[in-house]
Amino acid sequence: MARDRDLDAADPLAGFRDRFVVGDPALIYLDGNSLGRLPRATGERLERLVEEEWGGELVRGWDHWIDLPTKVGDALAAGVLGARPGEVIVCDSTTVNFYKLAVAALAARPGRRVVVTDRDNFPTDRYVLEGLAAAHDLELRWLAADPVDGPQPRDIAAVLDEDVGLVALSHVNYRSAAIADMAEITRLAHEAGALTLWDLSHSAGAIPVELEASGADVAVGCTYKYLNAGPGAPAYLYVRAALQQELRNPIQGWFGRRDQFAMGQGYEPAPGITSWLTGTPTIVALAAVEEGVRLVAEAGIKAIRAKGIALTEYAIELHDAWLAPLGFALGSPREAARRGAHVACRRADPRQLCDELLRAGIVTDFREPDSIRLGLSPLTTSFAEVRTAVDRLRTLAGG
Amino acid sequence: MARDRDLDAADPLAGFRDRFVVGDPALIYLDGNSLGRLPRATGERLERLVEEEWGGELVRGWDHWIDLPTKVGDALAAGVLGARPGEVIVCDSTTVNFYKLAVAALAARPGRRVVVTDRDNFPTDRYVLEGLAAAHDLELRWLAADPVDGPQPRDIAAVLDEDVGLVALSHVNYRSAAIADMAEITRLAHEAGALTLWDLSHSAGAIPVELEASGADVAVGCTYKYLNAGPGAPAYLYVRAALQQELRNPIQGWFGRRDQFAMGQGYEPAPGITSWLTGTPTIVALAAVEEGVRLVAEAGIKAIRAKGIALTEYAIELHDAWLAPLGFALGSPREAARRGAHVACRRADPRQLCDELLRAGIVTDFREPDSIRLGLSPLTTSFAEVRTAVDRLRTLAGG
Repeated sequence: MARDRDLDAADPLAGFRDRFVVGDPALIYLDGNSLGRLPRATGERLERLVEEEWGGELVRGWDHWIDLPTKVGDALAAGVLGARPGEVIVCDSTTVNFYKLAVAALAARPGRRVVVTDRDNFPTDRYVLEGLAAAHDLELRWLAADPVDGPQPRDIAAVLDEDVGLVALSHVNYRSAAIADMAEITRLAHEAGALTLWDLSHSAGAIPVELEASGADVAVGCTYKYLNAGPGAPAYLYVRAALQQELRNPIQGWFGRRDQFAMGQGYEPAPGITSWLTGTPTIVALAAVEEGVRLVAEAGIKAIRAKGIALTEYAIELHDAWLAPLGFALGSPREAARRGAHVACRRADPRQLCDELLRAGIVTDFREPDSIRLGLSPLTTSFAEVRTAVDRLRTLAGG
Repeated sequence: MARDRDLDAADPLAGFRDRFVVGDPALIYLDGNSLGRLPRATGERLERLVEEEWGGELVRGWDHWIDLPTKVGDALAAGVLGARPGEVIVCDSTTVNFYKLAVAALAARPGRRVVVTDRDNFPTDRYVLEGLAAAHDLELRWLAADPVDGPQPRDIAAVLDEDVGLVALSHVNYRSAAIADMAEITRLAHEAGALTLWDLSHSAGAIPVELEASGADVAVGCTYKYLNAGPGAPAYLYVRAALQQELRNPIQGWFGRRDQFAMGQGYEPAPGITSWLTGTPTIVALAAVEEGVRLVAEAGIKAIRAKGIALTEYAIELHDAWLAPLGFALGSPREAARRGAHVACRRADPRQLCDELLRAGIVTDFREPDSIRLGLSPLTTSFAEVRTAVDRLRTLAGG
């Protein structure tokens, strides 16, 4: 079976691997959906930023640093998120941004006290909503969605009524990689008078995210997965231009104020997306986001998506041939159009298998209760790595 | 007048300047209270962190990164803040932390709907409180404090009653450098049944902050001023151990949850100060905080304070001799014990003078409406720099 070599030879994105630091070439890294690799350009950029800008320009660096949150936001909007300039800003963490937008969206639908979400939604999203529900006497209405296929439009339709103010879902499920139908779910939510809040953490940089075309209202996402911006890099948020007058940031900080450095009395929001800043943005980390986004934009999200499909199809083919006979079940949708860039393989003992893979130099991750995730980051993963990893997993699993 | 040279020769901290990157030795940098200089060790640490840890360890780096917020928090507690282990954590921005603690403190004083603060408090603190007041129907009660001397205990006593739930003040005023009497104001607040929330941004690393001894309830602060952690570096927050059961983080994120990586249903706070984390901490920036805090702890806050007093006394002496005859007035307390590590000089045309100083290679900053701040960061500022800067200011001001 030399198909992996043929696939790698025909891969138009194969050259992008050289744009990243690959410290140990023998390491097989299938966890770029948790923390993406380090782009070479980022190391150089951060060194310049620290030594020349912070060290040399000192406080005068703010003359240009001040533009980074919107500049990188615009690059994300154009290259990754299918949004317009002035609709995306990079700041805070995904959690804090999710909180800001959830509070703002609910305030914009007064009287509607129900939030719809999914038991398999990413934990931080659920926890934020649970905190808001307890503090503000809201009802969380949990979808009855399939854990592999994720929330379907019919699941949403079944729980929508005139009490629902907000539907908050992940675009790609963190465990199964199921893609939610953003456009259709948003259409249903709007029909019922609710707003939609999307978490793009597991989709941005891996599949096309058409925020504008889908009608989505607001969204958040992290930058340290497929956008390769480093551990805990700042997150982003999106507010549709048409909603920017209506929604208001509940954390009123000085970076979100009009004419910030006048330090005047009384808060007035800055114009547009800038009002969603809170405190001082972390400049070193923001520069890493810019570099990561630049690489994704250069490769092009269509080419990335094509390779993501090819990688996951190949992994599923190997799963079916080698792992299914050993008692594994696929934990991701089989239909390529409904699946992001990772594949979950389910069996009763995945934690131990993950640990053994790690000792064998293959990084994957375990997700409760029974999944091994193979993260197939299109810019850095080869087909040969997929083959070697699944082959080793087969051996470890008793095959 | 060679006093500056004598003072520099006798300065026990003079050697610390070499621990920082000084790109242009001719530049006189009196704005370390806005953005501190780059420690040499930080450049090296960040390069290692990016290339070896992120680039080489990849997601496995989280095995040790996960401890950074509490580890650096403990270092801050011991070396800078006069707090105990487990009372301080590094995360988010000052603004977001201030929001979290203000919401939590008010929830712990149900029925009390008044927040006391100061018109001259740092803008982001005022803006956050104004947002909370509007959203939760609270009353903001503004102190009648002197803009130079800052809020006095008698000013607080005059506005306290049984409706006050929270007193939120800066420890050192950002413009005048006035030090508020944390212990006495906290005592008065407690007597009235209110909690205190302190912003330490302009005091931590410049003067001793005795959180434990003062009785302060909760506090926040930034790390990019006297702690030299870089532009927009993560902030910290303090919750007195005795209050950690009572106060609850309103932004419930996955990093604040017990047994985070189980990703289970339902939010349960992690034990202790960890519950105040929200989203994924920015690791590169956290490492810079650790290095900055390490330098301050090594120098010792007592030695830093002694030099801060000597520098500001010298600056005031020169102000009185050279600037006062030109129409300047001192915008900082004259009593050393009531003044932090910067000095404000007031006249009608400070913005223009700041710009001219900058063109002459002297970085200070302007604060509305009439102050030039001379930030005299004790680890990196020499007495000769103070003399040269005030001398040049005299010339530019028509002297």
